[in-house]
Amino acid sequence: MEEQKQEEDVVGWAARDTSGVLFPFTFPKRAMKSDEITLKVLYCGICHTDLSVIKNEWGNAIYPVVPGHEVVGVVIEVGRAAHKFKSGDKVGVGYLAGSCFSCDSCEVGDENYCAEFVRSFNSSHPDGTKTFGGFAGSMVISERFAVKIPETMPLDKAAPLMCAGVTVYAPMKRHGLDQPGLHLGVLGLGGLGHLAVKFGKAFGMRVTVISSTPDKEKEAIDGLGADSFIVSSNEGQMKAARGTMDGIISTSSGALSLGTLITLLRVYGKLILVGSPNKPPELPTFGLISGGRSVAGSMIGGLKETQEMLDFAAEHRILPMVEVVGMNDVNDAMQRLARGDVRYRFVIDVANTICAT
Amino acid sequence: MEEQKQEEDVVGWAARDTSGVLFPFTFPKRAMKSDEITLKVLYCGICHTDLSVIKNEWGNAIYPVVPGHEVVGVVIEVGRAAHKFKSGDKVGVGYLAGSCFSCDSCEVGDENYCAEFVRSFNSSHPDGTKTFGGFAGSMVISERFAVKIPETMPLDKAAPLMCAGVTVYAPMKRHGLDQPGLHLGVLGLGGLGHLAVKFGKAFGMRVTVISSTPDKEKEAIDGLGADSFIVSSNEGQMKAARGTMDGIISTSSGALSLGTLITLLRVYGKLILVGSPNKPPELPTFGLISGGRSVAGSMIGGLKETQEMLDFAAEHRILPMVEVVGMNDVNDAMQRLARGDVRYRFVIDVANTICAT
Repeated sequence: MEEQKQEEDVVGWAARDTSGVLFPFTFPKRAMKSDEITLKVLYCGICHTDLSVIKNEWGNAIYPVVPGHEVVGVVIEVGRAAHKFKSGDKVGVGYLAGSCFSCDSCEVGDENYCAEFVRSFNSSHPDGTKTFGGFAGSMVISERFAVKIPETMPLDKAAPLMCAGVTVYAPMKRHGLDQPGLHLGVLGLGGLGHLAVKFGKAFGMRVTVISSTPDKEKEAIDGLGADSFIVSSNEGQMKAARGTMDGIISTSSGALSLGTLITLLRVYGKLILVGSPNKPPELPTFGLISGGRSVAGSMIGGLKETQEMLDFAAEHRILPMVEVVGMNDVNDAMQRLARGDVRYRFVIDVANTICAT
Repeated sequence: MEEQKQEEDVVGWAARDTSGVLFPFTFPKRAMKSDEITLKVLYCGICHTDLSVIKNEWGNAIYPVVPGHEVVGVVIEVGRAAHKFKSGDKVGVGYLAGSCFSCDSCEVGDENYCAEFVRSFNSSHPDGTKTFGGFAGSMVISERFAVKIPETMPLDKAAPLMCAGVTVYAPMKRHGLDQPGLHLGVLGLGGLGHLAVKFGKAFGMRVTVISSTPDKEKEAIDGLGADSFIVSSNEGQMKAARGTMDGIISTSSGALSLGTLITLLRVYGKLILVGSPNKPPELPTFGLISGGRSVAGSMIGGLKETQEMLDFAAEHRILPMVEVVGMNDVNDAMQRLARGDVRYRFVIDVANTICAT
């Protein structure tokens, strides 16, 4: 009996307080429902949201927190009523682990905007069971909230697409920023931004990176394929780009000068916020009105969009640049992420390192 | 000779300083170019912009200012190369009197977003000649910037459609807020707002007025046909309407709480600003991001849209509620407009009163 119970335990790494320091943490595997699958976690990306949550910067941490919501794994168990996957399939899990299934958003596949959605970590299901993320040996998830990883896609690089990828892809599609010849601005060249550049180029757009870091220019252009690079503090460069962009994806979570960004937009141009600034910025209403411009928000994407994004990424060979680390290195990686020292996404090799602790 | 010269003078009413007080003012008629027409002004609406400009609230007044940009008149002279109208036609002139004719915006009929557009008053043409607005006996205008008033439309009521009408109609069409069954919020029940209600109902929408003035409820519902009415300071009513609106047209030029308005929007809902708040509001980015919502600006409309709007208004019998005043009463009307004491638009009976002074 004792042995059997241990088999049902899962080893993860959890933060236990606002220090955000992660430690090994064993928790009982959640009982799998009939529409669920169990996956062995292979890789998990580290998103800035994980960092914010483990340090309780948003005031919503429910310790112990096992973070991780850019998960790639292999199916090891399938519920009786689950038909989407079979054992051995490679699947991805992102930010979502549940939703109401019946609201307008759920009905059209926008589970990300369901008012009752359940996060895949630091959250709880309606029955009260906590969700633990991908910094763990396995996960139990409703089949609706898992997607198929295309066969040609390297599994470590697939991980960041599950959050960073769909977060930039979904609003580009929704707002028509996927048309050849349009000019896309990408503010911030990090985990999200570098993928926005790659998707923009795959859509046939002209892509300009707007960054506060001059030394990213060479990589933006030579490495990522951006057409041009503007340093946001360079008034001459910013002025020369005025009125030229059809849309800007802002991935920045720092203070934003919307007024300056909006001057870069053409008539009817759209500024899309996918990163929330740490302080509500002033909205320059005159700049919006005088050019019919708009500012929109967007949050991750639905499951249908996530699958579509993965398939598009596989077809166009859009892969994030990642630095793969072991589970033991996660606290160091978190510190480097906090100071922006990663190009452009850490991915934890969970399967090979989680039990070595 | 002396007599002939007097025939070419135009009598208007102008503000000469920041008091904004209007006095009779005679100016030489501008020489008509071959693509232009001359119209005898019949009616001219009074828009809040006229008030702001004559008092130099925006710092751009070029005194003497003859205001007026909701003009209805009758064609009395037609340039050799002008073919759109003939003498006797009833035409409307709005905010625009010129543009570059060659930019992307001009090419698609969005002259209102041409970077070089010329206002029909308090502005000047590229050749340096000043523009004087519709508070005058006649106007000379390029035929491109005049539209045909539908035959069935009362001329006094047609006037406010030239600015207020197209200002609300254009963004409703552009942003898909013209579909039966959608729920439209209209913030502010004034010259623009009451027309937004009427267009919304003609489109088959459910329309809710959001107003700071409780005593407008009966008129909003019984008089204008709104489906419901919310007092913006009534927390219970605002809370009950959360997440229900597909779009909101904000006609308010007062301080705005965007955060509160955005909570009224459904997922993907749009807040359209057509009135610029006197102070840049804070943008609640979380509210935008968590629901895929957006805030857009919009400024009047192009000439094609203006004609389309007039034809739609004639077909659906959408007419503003106006109070017709004589030219002598214009200063009193301006004072009443400043305190919001008009339901919902003053229109000056120019032709019958301008020479009686």
